[in-house]
Formats: sequence, C-alpha cells, structure tokens
Amino acid sequence: MTRQELIAEIHRKQSFLCIGLDPELDKIPSHLKTFDDPIFEFNKRIIDATAECAVAFKPNTAFYEAQGVRGWETLEKTLNYIPKNCFVIADAKRGDIGNTAFNYAKTFFEALTCDAVTVAPYMGKDSVEPFLQFKDKWAIVLGLTSNEGAQDFQYRTDVHNQPLFSQIIEKVAQWGTKDNLMFVVGATRSEELRQIRFLVPHHFLLIPGVGVQGGSLRQVVEAGMNEDVGLLINASRSIIYASSGEDFDKIAKKEALKLQAEMGLYLQRLKR
Amino acid sequence: MTRQELIAEIHRKQSFLCIGLDPELDKIPSHLKTFDDPIFEFNKRIIDATAECAVAFKPNTAFYEAQGVRGWETLEKTLNYIPKNCFVIADAKRGDIGNTAFNYAKTFFEALTCDAVTVAPYMGKDSVEPFLQFKDKWAIVLGLTSNEGAQDFQYRTDVHNQPLFSQIIEKVAQWGTKDNLMFVVGATRSEELRQIRFLVPHHFLLIPGVGVQGGSLRQVVEAGMNEDVGLLINASRSIIYASSGEDFDKIAKKEALKLQAEMGLYLQRLKR
Repeated sequence: MTRQELIAEIHRKQSFLCIGLDPELDKIPSHLKTFDDPIFEFNKRIIDATAECAVAFKPNTAFYEAQGVRGWETLEKTLNYIPKNCFVIADAKRGDIGNTAFNYAKTFFEALTCDAVTVAPYMGKDSVEPFLQFKDKWAIVLGLTSNEGAQDFQYRTDVHNQPLFSQIIEKVAQWGTKDNLMFVVGATRSEELRQIRFLVPHHFLLIPGVGVQGGSLRQVVEAGMNEDVGLLINASRSIIYASSGEDFDKIAKKEALKLQAEMGLYLQRLKR
Repeated sequence: MTRQELIAEIHRKQSFLCIGLDPELDKIPSHLKTFDDPIFEFNKRIIDATAECAVAFKPNTAFYEAQGVRGWETLEKTLNYIPKNCFVIADAKRGDIGNTAFNYAKTFFEALTCDAVTVAPYMGKDSVEPFLQFKDKWAIVLGLTSNEGAQDFQYRTDVHNQPLFSQIIEKVAQWGTKDNLMFVVGATRSEELRQIRFLVPHHFLLIPGVGVQGGSLRQVVEAGMNEDVGLLINASRSIIYASSGEDFDKIAKKEALKLQAEMGLYLQRLKR
C-alpha cells in the first residue's frame, strides 16, 4: 500500500487506528476453544468486528511462532483474511546482516504479502536497507519503545547530549523516504515524540502504548500529528481482550469505535 | 545444555566450532532438489558429515521462515535431527517487550528445544530477561556484529568515550550469569574482542565472521580465549557451500576438519 492510499483510507474511515492481533490461547474466550484453529477464529471475529474502525492490523509474530508450524499456518490464514484496504504490519522486529535481512523481507513482503515489517536498528544500514527495496512496502524501524527497558540504552547520550534514539531516527531517515519508512515511537513518551516529529516532520510514526500501557491519545496527537496525519496508533490488549465473554467481538468493536470517534475529531480539526 | 557440559564436549571433540545451517534453495546442490524436502536433506547430510567436528549448530530462522509453513517444518525436523550432544542455537535475533519476548523464549526453548537464542539488546532489560528464566537455556545477546552496518550505531561513544557495544555488554552482563548468557562478537574485530574479553572475562562469546566474512581464527583465539575456552566460532557459508557437487557433504567435512585441527592445537596449548 502506498502512502497516498494509506492517507486516503485514514480520511475515508476517519481513523488512524491499528489493531494488534496478539492472541494467546489461554486468553481467548473459552467458547472458541472447540474450533479446529481457535486463534484464527478469534482473529477472524476481531477483524470482522473492527475492520471499519481500523486502518491497519498488526499481528506480532511471536504469538504465532509460539504455536509452531500450526501457528505459522494461523498467521498465514489471518493475513489472507484481513481486507485488502487495510494496511498490514508484521510486528517481527527483525534485524540481521544484509543477506539474511533480504530473506526476512522476501518472507514478509512476498510470501506473506504484508505491507510493512518492524525492524530493529542495532545492526545498522545493511540490516535495514533490504526492507526498503520492495515497491510499495515499508520498514518500520524501532525508534523509541514504550517499555521500561527503553531506559537502558535508547536514552544514552553522546558528547553532544543527543540521545541514541534520536541519532538512530536521524540517520535511518537518510536511508529511506517518507514513502517506505516509518518509525516506532512509544506513546508513553510524548515529550520525546515532539522532538522526533521535529527530526522527521513528514514520516508516519507507529505509536504503540495507548491503552494498557498508559499513553494518552490526545497527547500523542498534539505532539505527533502532521499535515498528512502521520500517525498510526496501535492498541492491542485494550481492544482484543476488552471482554472474555462470547460477545468479545462486540465489546472489541465498542472499544475500537470509541478510539475512532476521538480520532475523527482530531482529523476534522486537521482540515480546518 | 549446561556450561560444564558444553566445555566437556569442546574438550572431547577438540573443537569449538559452530556450523551455521543457513540453507537457500537456489544454493544447495541440484541433485537434492528432487527430494520432498530438499533443505532438510541438505541439512541432514551436513549434520551427518560434521557432527563430530562441531560442538554446535546454528540455524538462522530467516532462511526457514522464507519458505513459509514448510520452512518452519523443515526447521523443526532439522532441530530434531541434530545429535543431543550438540549445542543448538536458534539465530533469531529476537527482541521485544517482556510479554512478547517470553513467547519467543517459550517457542525456541520449549517447543523447539534449542539450547540458546540470539537476542537483540536495543529494547533493554525486559526484552532480554525472559530468555534468562529457563533452566540450562541461554540468551546470546548481540554485542558487536561483523557486518558493515556495525559502524552506524555500535561504535557511538558517550561522554566517557565508551562505545555503545561496550556499554551494552557491560550492562547486559549484570542481568544474567556466565551460565545463561553469551555475547555475539564479530570475528572481523579482534581489537575490540580483546576489550570485550576484559569486560566479560568468563562468558562464552559466539564469534561469527570467520571464513567468508574474513576473520582469522588465530587472531580470535589470541584475543578471546579464556581458561574455559569461552569461544564458539561460527562458520556457515565457507563450510556448507564449500562445494555444490554431489560430494558437498564430504567437502564440507573436509573444511570442518581443517578448522577442528587448528582448534585442537589451541586447546592443547590451553592445558599447558
């Protein structure tokens, strides 16, 4: 999916919500467990219920790999089931030397037809570039993450007092364009989000951490929205596990609708 | 596998060689392509030919994921085929928030029964710790990598002139012990290897980059060996693709034997 198509979908749906499909067998509603592939059934119902409130879906590969060969089948089925007008992100956080990174890129972009893959920056340029060679596909590079461990290395400053996350974003931005590169920026860090928006005024940012992890949507929008929206806000557990009853998909939709309604207000302001 | 068992195997086999099982369909000998699972057939023959010269095998997950569900099956079959006295490393370079990292750890340690997983450090403590909770299992954290992109961020110095890779190794070493934690250090960097050995005198280091990537075994041993050997030297392409003929496994063995012979000399010196 191109940048223009993504922006058009955001305006059509009045939403820049991304839903994280991170299902765990022991957390999905028990009535699904009699199905042959309970996780796929769970995903299918979540997708059906929310595809008109969300512009993107983001399965995290860890939750599928944990089920072995069957999990990989579930991932493939899930990816095929997501409507074509949704932006699909494989949250895989891959990062390896060029030859290996190219294999990951082929896997996620060609075999699994995802639009984007999350990529870890530690190994540098030749580990990121293979993801930038595919037409209309995206690398979403970790900038500043929302977890506690972000404190360990990402804030480490150099002699010019510039933190590592900021140097990474500045440098990686030179390797791609706003049409094939996004950054992950945790929603729990809205001060830093403002600094990052200054560094990369035109790029899309994928923002996890709204919801269970405690980030506020309003603060993220105030700090990070640009003229093309420029934000994909991810929520996973706060939507997919909003209820563990048989009506979990309806409750998930209700939660997604709430976020969509708030996003709609911000999008209208953007037009004025 | 415990540290003591690994050290015992190194002395028994007179080898600290790790063989990277990174097969690509278009690089394996053509006579294997008629088999139902050519990549497994390739791996099987490599393992049969080299298991007495190598103490460890390291499949890189990218090459299996690139084949989709079938590739994941091939990976499982390969892991099951490796003899129990070999140390098995899933080269997956995973790194994600705690909950997700735990799923990756379960996958590789429990479902796939690997001894170790390579882990990316960028997301900090809660992304590494889940891999340190499993009895007799190992996290092998990226320290300094052998690729060109290592220059981009890993050498970045702070106000005390300490490079990032060195700070990461120093800090991560506090999260685990020499019994559940190793570091990846590229063989192309023997000066830095000496510095790293000073920081973590007792940990095992996994050293890729000997062979095709140009690192010298002697230099690595001089800079990095400790009283317990403390090194696993990985070679992938220089062994598995040494020949593309029908006798590829014999030629692979010959290459592995050469390295084993050189390693044997260094191990004998260690005893004196």
